[in-house]
Amino acid sequence: MTKVGVWGGAGYTGGELLRLLSAHPGVELAQVASRSHAGEAVTKPHPHLRRLGGMKFSAELDPAGLDAIFLAGGHGEAMAWLPGVLSKGKALKVVDLSADFRLKDAAQYPVFYGKAHAAPALLADFVYGLPELDAAAVKRASKIANPGCFATAVALALGPLAKAGLGGAAQVTAVTGSSGSGASPSATTHHPAREGNLKAYKPLAHQHVPEIEAFLAKIAGKPSFALSMVPVSGPFVRGIYAICHVSVPESADLAGLYASAYADKAFVRLVDAPPDLKTVTGTNHCDLHVARKGTNAVIIAALDNLVKGAAGQAVQNLNLMLGLPETAGLEAVGVYP
Amino acid sequence: MTKVGVWGGAGYTGGELLRLLSAHPGVELAQVASRSHAGEAVTKPHPHLRRLGGMKFSAELDPAGLDAIFLAGGHGEAMAWLPGVLSKGKALKVVDLSADFRLKDAAQYPVFYGKAHAAPALLADFVYGLPELDAAAVKRASKIANPGCFATAVALALGPLAKAGLGGAAQVTAVTGSSGSGASPSATTHHPAREGNLKAYKPLAHQHVPEIEAFLAKIAGKPSFALSMVPVSGPFVRGIYAICHVSVPESADLAGLYASAYADKAFVRLVDAPPDLKTVTGTNHCDLHVARKGTNAVIIAALDNLVKGAAGQAVQNLNLMLGLPETAGLEAVGVYP
Amino acid sequence: MTKVGVWGGAGYTGGELLRLLSAHPGVELAQVASRSHAGEAVTKPHPHLRRLGGMKFSAELDPAGLDAIFLAGGHGEAMAWLPGVLSKGKALKVVDLSADFRLKDAAQYPVFYGKAHAAPALLADFVYGLPELDAAAVKRASKIANPGCFATAVALALGPLAKAGLGGAAQVTAVTGSSGSGASPSATTHHPAREGNLKAYKPLAHQHVPEIEAFLAKIAGKPSFALSMVPVSGPFVRGIYAICHVSVPESADLAGLYASAYADKAFVRLVDAPPDLKTVTGTNHCDLHVARKGTNAVIIAALDNLVKGAAGQAVQNLNLMLGLPETAGLEAVGVYP
Amino acid sequence: MTKVGVWGGAGYTGGELLRLLSAHPGVELAQVASRSHAGEAVTKPHPHLRRLGGMKFSAELDPAGLDAIFLAGGHGEAMAWLPGVLSKGKALKVVDLSADFRLKDAAQYPVFYGKAHAAPALLADFVYGLPELDAAAVKRASKIANPGCFATAVALALGPLAKAGLGGAAQVTAVTGSSGSGASPSATTHHPAREGNLKAYKPLAHQHVPEIEAFLAKIAGKPSFALSMVPVSGPFVRGIYAICHVSVPESADLAGLYASAYADKAFVRLVDAPPDLKTVTGTNHCDLHVARKGTNAVIIAALDNLVKGAAGQAVQNLNLMLGLPETAGLEAVGVYP
Repeated sequence: MTKVGVWGGAGYTGGELLRLLSAHPGVELAQVASRSHAGEAVTKPHPHLRRLGGMKFSAELDPAGLDAIFLAGGHGEAMAWLPGVLSKGKALKVVDLSADFRLKDAAQYPVFYGKAHAAPALLADFVYGLPELDAAAVKRASKIANPGCFATAVALALGPLAKAGLGGAAQVTAVTGSSGSGASPSATTHHPAREGNLKAYKPLAHQHVPEIEAFLAKIAGKPSFALSMVPVSGPFVRGIYAICHVSVPESADLAGLYASAYADKAFVRLVDAPPDLKTVTGTNHCDLHVARKGTNAVIIAALDNLVKGAAGQAVQNLNLMLGLPETAGLEAVGVYP
Repeated sequence: MTKVGVWGGAGYTGGELLRLLSAHPGVELAQVASRSHAGEAVTKPHPHLRRLGGMKFSAELDPAGLDAIFLAGGHGEAMAWLPGVLSKGKALKVVDLSADFRLKDAAQYPVFYGKAHAAPALLADFVYGLPELDAAAVKRASKIANPGCFATAVALALGPLAKAGLGGAAQVTAVTGSSGSGASPSATTHHPAREGNLKAYKPLAHQHVPEIEAFLAKIAGKPSFALSMVPVSGPFVRGIYAICHVSVPESADLAGLYASAYADKAFVRLVDAPPDLKTVTGTNHCDLHVARKGTNAVIIAALDNLVKGAAGQAVQNLNLMLGLPETAGLEAVGVYP
Repeated sequence: MTKVGVWGGAGYTGGELLRLLSAHPGVELAQVASRSHAGEAVTKPHPHLRRLGGMKFSAELDPAGLDAIFLAGGHGEAMAWLPGVLSKGKALKVVDLSADFRLKDAAQYPVFYGKAHAAPALLADFVYGLPELDAAAVKRASKIANPGCFATAVALALGPLAKAGLGGAAQVTAVTGSSGSGASPSATTHHPAREGNLKAYKPLAHQHVPEIEAFLAKIAGKPSFALSMVPVSGPFVRGIYAICHVSVPESADLAGLYASAYADKAFVRLVDAPPDLKTVTGTNHCDLHVARKGTNAVIIAALDNLVKGAAGQAVQNLNLMLGLPETAGLEAVGVYP
Repeated sequence: MTKVGVWGGAGYTGGELLRLLSAHPGVELAQVASRSHAGEAVTKPHPHLRRLGGMKFSAELDPAGLDAIFLAGGHGEAMAWLPGVLSKGKALKVVDLSADFRLKDAAQYPVFYGKAHAAPALLADFVYGLPELDAAAVKRASKIANPGCFATAVALALGPLAKAGLGGAAQVTAVTGSSGSGASPSATTHHPAREGNLKAYKPLAHQHVPEIEAFLAKIAGKPSFALSMVPVSGPFVRGIYAICHVSVPESADLAGLYASAYADKAFVRLVDAPPDLKTVTGTNHCDLHVARKGTNAVIIAALDNLVKGAAGQAVQNLNLMLGLPETAGLEAVGVYP
């Protein structure tokens, strides 16, 4: 059994990793670290995980006993921590869920994240892990930069067009649940202000746009989409709902394009009517719907930000790196309603 | 005092009309009719309106005792009912809150609403009542087709561009609260399915797009915007949140354009950051924010679908037709949070 | 493998049965019937269950191919349907999730449910299936009357006191999620009215009080608790949150009593602080907290109305009747937050 | 015009005071102070109050220009601040919305609030301001201790029984909205954890029980009710929903008792069915329903925690102290749904 460790396991994404890994048939959840919760029971921040009753957070992972690690710390933490661990020489599969290794060009980090990259030499080792659109690269990789939740939704929505050479301008509005802001209380997740409300933020200026554009260009083999994206905070806990407006040639066979792109993909499902969030929450699925009127088209994507948008996709990436079935540990059905 | 009657007063829009008119300093709420609730106390469907304690629904309005009427019935009902009333010869101000008189061309009704228009001769008498963008026409009118909630939000967002000749393609995503579906339970407003969920509907095919395009063309004096619109059902009760992507010339002074368009408008407020719904719910305000990056721009509009998107705007239109202050009866502040 | 059928499989409780049974290691989900959805795909009302992709609802179950059946129809339907099926002679394990066989005295049905019982001869065959408090009876049974959601919460909260002979008056307030009203839209589940709201109903007059009192008397071996219960409709989808006020002797060792009553029960967990709903939703757990001040005590129970309050407990009861591990098919962890 | 000042005006209760006072026909909102927001525009924390556009928070109130002050600081702040202000000699009407002056016995403060009282000499000057049950005392007062939200709901529910000498044990479960926790983010108001959830806290140990018991004893003229209270955090923003179980003599005429107690009270309404929160939110009303079965009775109270449970009642108390109509400034209707 592959021994895995989770670093930064006390947050929401960490909790989802623990939930999935503790029921995974092909890996052993061997260590969980959290600096802020070191010494505490795992069930303190994750009261639903009582089957992990005896487990406690350590302050650090011990790579000697591990084959693979998931990094679920805040943005900026992985790049500071990882070089030291790797320097010990242990060959490790790494899946980083932060933004730290998603961009290839170290010069972009100061622009989009406000500080210089702490480990630029490692950037080339990381593969952007969106398996439905770039499985071969993931299978060859030993280090994965796990896409963000907005990025996963938008890339799955636009990827088939990019591959078909049908890039261009895309106008995206994407609504996110409050769990996307993490487990620490803040003004934007204060219940009286969030409930019953909608509020856009960083319109046309979100820091995840570059990773989406770069990945779509990679799979297109040339510059592809230029995104105008407006993220919106929604009054619900889980989910990303992305509506992507594009222009397409009158002659393009969109239905055929999407059907063939996702024909054998377990986690992407094309649906006949616009999807809804609750059908996919708690699962690793992304539901996609394509609507079209002449040269205008809209692709709508729905997924769970903490699963397909984070922890579930991270496990999917590890599965592929390890040669396990892609769906291992990811087959549980969500509840509805 | 102008005596007003409300026809179709038992629904949510009817309730808002009663709330506003019962506190209006310049009109007298004289009659309330509802076929389905005839004989019942007004407080039965509207338990919050106990100051109307003694009032009951009649089956029909008696125009003899009225100077103005609000039609808050379902779509298709006003066009069937109004000709008979008008034939009695009483001069009445009319504000119809349904879609029945919003399009000028009777031939469009079968296309967008599925049946022929029942009173095509009256279409020419109606003015589309969006006061901030076409106040002069409203003041001259005696019959108003009150815009829908999506239409109000999108037209206020794009109107200044239309007037400046900067029309073109617009990609709109607009999220609506559940009160927009009315007071009758349905699958789309079933709490277990609606709560915590998002679901788009009629993507690129909503029936209110023609009235928006037509109105923007009217105020532009030429064909203006072509809309790609995706309506979304949101997990909240009140509000329309519309995100409108457009392309603009590099040289366009958007800030100046919007500031001058809405300089003296009491109900449209330009805000420095993206607006939120809860700041405007319960009020007749529409908050607008303009963001821009090069030639891409986004205009975000937030309003209360039952007030500025229906009953409040209807009262505003009556105020203008009567020569009253535009804000009469519409000055109450909403609650927050 | 035991072949099971679900009758009334299109509702919310039916959906939960299908979710649980389709992943159950010891049974085969062989048939699903729904009169209203006959011929339709199971995924039509249950879009999250796509792993049941090929399955369709039949109009009726065929007992010839079944070893056990779950009845998830509306109240009054099981008693009308079951005698005909049983008359065919097939020995079947039966778990009825409706109220039809919960009371022993046929004369009580007209009083509490408004109509005479249709199969009074069968009443004696049914065992009230609350395993944590009466496992021996469940194991011996072939027909189970599955407790309602309020009843499960209150009986688990008060059962240890009843067994210890500490019954008496209990004042209960219990809040339910909207899924408890079923999949059909109604005024009480209309989103605009339910969201952000609380509303009690049938105070001191709920029809499930007799089954709770009768069961507590059964396990006490004498008359035990008299309940004053106020059910409340809450603005959430899943859960029962029951707060039970009781008087206890100064000398009673409540902590010891509850610890010993639930020492080896997989699905009842005693927690040190008041429980919350989201820790248990999606699971078959009931979390209990006991607080006390002198002779006043409060027991607080939290469970998922569709799982421990319905489908999960039904599976648990079948497990016991079949001699399977009690937790078979019920070990999935819920998601949080 | 009476000149009023609000001290601690940046929180939710402060915002409600500003909303109500700025539209009050009989007082002038002259000053608003907030230490944490000194120098900021009032519309910064209260974006819905744009009609107060030019107003800014000062660091302190200047009593020289004021006739009355509302203290809306945190618990413990008023008792530290008020003596200094009163020592300047200006005669001021004072309404304190904190708990600082609600108990008569200074010795209780260390027990229930964890620190000694800072101004015990002032305790005797304050009257507990629940006008519907003790109007005469309020009218004679110059300093009011404004009851808390739980206390108002429970006291209005049980007051008529207390006055009739029908006190005794009362088992109370009361659910509160998230705005009751104030404007600062915290773990209990973090949206992902609060949404869709219920969680009791301080069962049988809430610090507001003593003020309720003391007030009921005062109006009863003797010891009256002993409360077992369980507060619950609910997944909504506004409201207190209190369910109070009591025992009453078979012969007691509850309907008559409540009808006569509240016959001429503008803000307490007896309703025929259990009340709901949304009918009262945004208003100063408390809706009450009495249900009974033999000697068991339940009184259910619904009110808005920020209005009748705080700012609205504070304004009502000032009205009575000033000899103004009790309803002045409090007549606005809430929105529904």
